[in-house]
Amino acid sequence: MSIAGARCLVLGGGGFLGINLCRALLAAGAEVAGYGRRPHDRSALPSDLRWYDGDFADHAAIAQAVGGQDIVYHLLGGSVPAQSNAEPAADVVGSLLPSLRLIEACRAGGTGRLVFASSGGTVYGPTLPGIRITEDAPTNPITAYGINKLAVEKYLGLFRHLHGFDAVVLRVANPYGPFQHARRAQGVVGTALAHALAGEPIEIWGDGLVVRDYLHIDDVAAAMVTAGTYDGGQWLFNVGSGQGRTVRAVVEDVCALLGLPRDRIVHRPGRAVDVPYNVLNPDLIGREMGWAPSVDWQAGLVATARWLRERSAGRRTGA
Amino acid sequence: MSIAGARCLVLGGGGFLGINLCRALLAAGAEVAGYGRRPHDRSALPSDLRWYDGDFADHAAIAQAVGGQDIVYHLLGGSVPAQSNAEPAADVVGSLLPSLRLIEACRAGGTGRLVFASSGGTVYGPTLPGIRITEDAPTNPITAYGINKLAVEKYLGLFRHLHGFDAVVLRVANPYGPFQHARRAQGVVGTALAHALAGEPIEIWGDGLVVRDYLHIDDVAAAMVTAGTYDGGQWLFNVGSGQGRTVRAVVEDVCALLGLPRDRIVHRPGRAVDVPYNVLNPDLIGREMGWAPSVDWQAGLVATARWLRERSAGRRTGA
Repeated sequence: MSIAGARCLVLGGGGFLGINLCRALLAAGAEVAGYGRRPHDRSALPSDLRWYDGDFADHAAIAQAVGGQDIVYHLLGGSVPAQSNAEPAADVVGSLLPSLRLIEACRAGGTGRLVFASSGGTVYGPTLPGIRITEDAPTNPITAYGINKLAVEKYLGLFRHLHGFDAVVLRVANPYGPFQHARRAQGVVGTALAHALAGEPIEIWGDGLVVRDYLHIDDVAAAMVTAGTYDGGQWLFNVGSGQGRTVRAVVEDVCALLGLPRDRIVHRPGRAVDVPYNVLNPDLIGREMGWAPSVDWQAGLVATARWLRERSAGRRTGA
Repeated sequence: MSIAGARCLVLGGGGFLGINLCRALLAAGAEVAGYGRRPHDRSALPSDLRWYDGDFADHAAIAQAVGGQDIVYHLLGGSVPAQSNAEPAADVVGSLLPSLRLIEACRAGGTGRLVFASSGGTVYGPTLPGIRITEDAPTNPITAYGINKLAVEKYLGLFRHLHGFDAVVLRVANPYGPFQHARRAQGVVGTALAHALAGEPIEIWGDGLVVRDYLHIDDVAAAMVTAGTYDGGQWLFNVGSGQGRTVRAVVEDVCALLGLPRDRIVHRPGRAVDVPYNVLNPDLIGREMGWAPSVDWQAGLVATARWLRERSAGRRTGA
């Protein structure tokens, strides 16, 4: 199947990854609809995107939306990782159960394929430093958010086994880039850039030596588009850069890029939800789909800073 | 800590494993209370057992029961594996959510340790024939029941990490022995023996070449008692015989034991929920707790047949 002309539904299309994915799918010639909450910035959604306002808990609306789609992208999350640990049961009710009902709705509605955005940063849990994690590594999440994502993967595996259900899972690394919410703790890059551009202190949680795998959102969206029509024998893939950076190095790169002094950096206490080291090995998706990260780190950082500046300039001038 | 005098609560104390565990704990000198549904056979529960009639969904009652216990045994299950696949969401609501709330109640109530009876037969999913599965093997359940058990394990791991919560997980193989419900499809041994003794045909699902790890319930109960006070560095263990038997061999052993002809065996269609091969490697619990299976297969079968005969004789005479 070609992505051009394919009917695609993006659940969570108004979020950071969703907006970027909708744009990438439209650019690839797909017929795209989004479902979820619209972003605050209405201009983020392209005008040729069909849109369903809807909630993840509204099973009837989701069942109707997925009917007859060639590809459904499931990007609807629950809480963010740190919050999920305060109320794990709420996360099961608000995210795991609706995900399971979504899978059942896709099966009943004849959806061609379900592509699930899992979390490469949380499903594995603590790993040895220096290791590039492969898909067969142990999975011991230290957040309820990660357990939730892992359970959805297991249900997709179950439905594949029992019903021949067509599902692809992408365990996505830490994405950064345009449309990332700086104020919702979605990621270090967006938060650091936004604080820096606003003239505010840049926070680092803990000693800043936590290592993460940062991937530009264009590369994530490209992997998801490709996964929509992939026809090989695998079904679960890491999507990462394969390179580790400390939070401190990221913040220092942001300061260097903007010509800021390092005393703008302030340290906050560490959190038990942060695994010390998380870098994904993306070899499998490379072999199977020919995907590889294409956006250079420095170039991605420059482009993201430019996008943030233009957006805030646009806001000031009312554009 | 010694098990003698320890305050123990067995959630699901009226089930097959629960009855046997309550008896073993009492025999070891523990102060034991049971919680759940009473067994049909009231004489199964020892008279010196305290009992709480209660439902798994009754969170307040469970929270009250677990308060101040040294060891809480969580044996409450949801549906049986085959049924769980018909309604996975019902399994999440009826079993995973109450398990999670139970963990939270134990943490809040100061429970000393939670011992969870997981399922060695379902959490791993399909494995290569001939392999004795170790605890670090991949976990790809082909039943919602198995996903559920696996998710509870992950939440216990999370609470260990976040809160230093004391939990031990036992992935139990296929238990057989006294108090197994022959009519509730709880296991091949009990069902085959009961049908044989009642003069009924003995059913085999599929070709009978499915291999399982059968363990006498006395050995399972002994492992759970020991796990209550184990103080080593591990927390998740297989509990199995380490030996595989085909369903056909089990049924033939039953026929041979009772002097029945093989034409009493009838074949039924196979089921997608049956993994072809499942044999657990019990080396870790052997090394860590000095536990080993002690009941010989033939001896266990003879004893179970004797128990079934005596029980049905007792019923006929009204004893």
